[in-house]
Amino acid sequence: MAATMQDVARRAGVSVKTVSNVVNGYPHIRPATRDRVLTAIAELDYQINLTARNLRTGRTGIIGLAVPELSLPYFAELADSVIEAAESEGLTVIIEQHGGRREREVEILTGSRRHLTDGLIYSPLALGPGDERLLDVPYPLVLLGERIFHGPVDHVTMRNTDAARAATEYLLGLGRRRIAAVGVHPGEEVGSAALRLDGYRAALDAAGVRPDPALEGEAGLWHRRTGAEAMAEVLDRGARPDAVFAFNDALALGAMHELQVRGLRVPEDVAVVGFDAIDEGRYSNPTLTTVDPGREEIARTAVRLLHGRTRGAAGEPQRVAPPFGILVGGSTEPGRERSASEP
Amino acid sequence: MAATMQDVARRAGVSVKTVSNVVNGYPHIRPATRDRVLTAIAELDYQINLTARNLRTGRTGIIGLAVPELSLPYFAELADSVIEAAESEGLTVIIEQHGGRREREVEILTGSRRHLTDGLIYSPLALGPGDERLLDVPYPLVLLGERIFHGPVDHVTMRNTDAARAATEYLLGLGRRRIAAVGVHPGEEVGSAALRLDGYRAALDAAGVRPDPALEGEAGLWHRRTGAEAMAEVLDRGARPDAVFAFNDALALGAMHELQVRGLRVPEDVAVVGFDAIDEGRYSNPTLTTVDPGREEIARTAVRLLHGRTRGAAGEPQRVAPPFGILVGGSTEPGRERSASEP
Repeated sequence: MAATMQDVARRAGVSVKTVSNVVNGYPHIRPATRDRVLTAIAELDYQINLTARNLRTGRTGIIGLAVPELSLPYFAELADSVIEAAESEGLTVIIEQHGGRREREVEILTGSRRHLTDGLIYSPLALGPGDERLLDVPYPLVLLGERIFHGPVDHVTMRNTDAARAATEYLLGLGRRRIAAVGVHPGEEVGSAALRLDGYRAALDAAGVRPDPALEGEAGLWHRRTGAEAMAEVLDRGARPDAVFAFNDALALGAMHELQVRGLRVPEDVAVVGFDAIDEGRYSNPTLTTVDPGREEIARTAVRLLHGRTRGAAGEPQRVAPPFGILVGGSTEPGRERSASEP
Repeated sequence: MAATMQDVARRAGVSVKTVSNVVNGYPHIRPATRDRVLTAIAELDYQINLTARNLRTGRTGIIGLAVPELSLPYFAELADSVIEAAESEGLTVIIEQHGGRREREVEILTGSRRHLTDGLIYSPLALGPGDERLLDVPYPLVLLGERIFHGPVDHVTMRNTDAARAATEYLLGLGRRRIAAVGVHPGEEVGSAALRLDGYRAALDAAGVRPDPALEGEAGLWHRRTGAEAMAEVLDRGARPDAVFAFNDALALGAMHELQVRGLRVPEDVAVVGFDAIDEGRYSNPTLTTVDPGREEIARTAVRLLHGRTRGAAGEPQRVAPPFGILVGGSTEPGRERSASEP
């Protein structure tokens, strides 16, 4: 016969109310008690009645997070930050990866997993302008990233153009003039690459430096490998950069590797700046100067907005863009460990 | 009125059979067709009937993957490999992170998400000997990692002790004698740390090198930061290592950073070997020599075993440990880019 909640309570030596609290994911239960209850649930093979749970709270306590790729360190660290923010609000996160494939991105919005989650934090790569209607879903949704603006949902984004401009101005302030851009998506008018390229060009323009197309390194995906390849292309065409602004840290670390393999000194010959402030750049040799886009605040804000909507918060879709900063390391200033600096 | 599968088919301009195939996750559907169907599903807000789907195939086509932490690059890359392996078998993956907290690890085994998945690939950190019964669950389960052996389920593991021994012997073969171990968990008798320490000590013993406790650097969590701290401790107590075997790559990269900050040359003064073969070590300066534990084969094997069990494969629990290799980089041999070498 199937185990009941009473059986679980008896075995764990707690009240049925306590079992119910554990099952419903209420915070403020002592870890030892939770552990006893969960062990009893496992031992008795008690099947949590999901429907009953939904009837009681109207919610499952689970939210979804959909990202392009966990092998991109930024998204792995973002997932970590979202999980931490969610836990502090008593929520559990399940993660899905769509790989930037349009069909997976649509499927995640509509798939059966949505029956089990209270809402979704969603960072698409393939959807874009014209797809706003797909975001009109019958559950709470918070959008991340730079693919769709003015959708019908809350949106937490980075200050891409301003931050890219500040990073480029920082390099100009160091006296660098031949600044390569690594991670360009030629012909693309939406997304992070286009916005960061805008900021880069605006900074050059304001400083009276003519942009040189030979200094723009193309990289469709933003991995270490593609950063190294784009850097190699720029160098092979003889463009002779004295600095690199890479559109994310993985690209920057790949580019820095390529420079070093060729015997160019970072930062003396070529200064390098990335974007994202991933942990890896605190330990690279040299440490990586980077834009800190406010990942933890992005995660906290997204979870807070979503949690509010799941509890019925009404009102117009919100758009939030946390402040950014520049973290200065040895890749632009010789011998420097990484530390915060004002943009 | 709720949209039906017929409505979706009409809107997408395909047959009901095609809609059904898309919903059921069959492979071999043209991407453009899938996309049209998924878009129609989204536009009509068609709710996929999960029960019907289950009645039809007996499965959901979704598997779970539970890992300690996605901010540990190994697990992020493992997740990526599992997703890739699953996709090639037509399966979707949802990921949960337990942070090595016992209550979360138990909850993942028993929680309501299991109703939606066909099975679980499970890598615990807190469960250990004595918890085998918790793995006796009513759904297919494949265990990863080194915490529990001889459980009632399929288990894919690394060759920890042999690989650690080979890594240490490789350093001995380079003439290094004062080899630090970074990542030690004092007093712990199960898990990766204990197994890798065994291999390290066995290699020293076979070479007639007396182990020096001052060369063993403790690190509970295996991050870059803790690797740097453990390295600092070893150096601060005056142990003067000429090599480091770090129990994972994140530790190794942190240790290498600490050595370099102190002006020690890698590999001339101190050679460094890691474990895991994460992508980051291909681009570090110098590139990182590491144990390749066969991550992709681990992922493929785990998915294959799980998929087989979800389709009713019977038989005794299997235990699989893919072969390992050593990838040699510049952290042990000056100027070397990373390349494969026989262990």
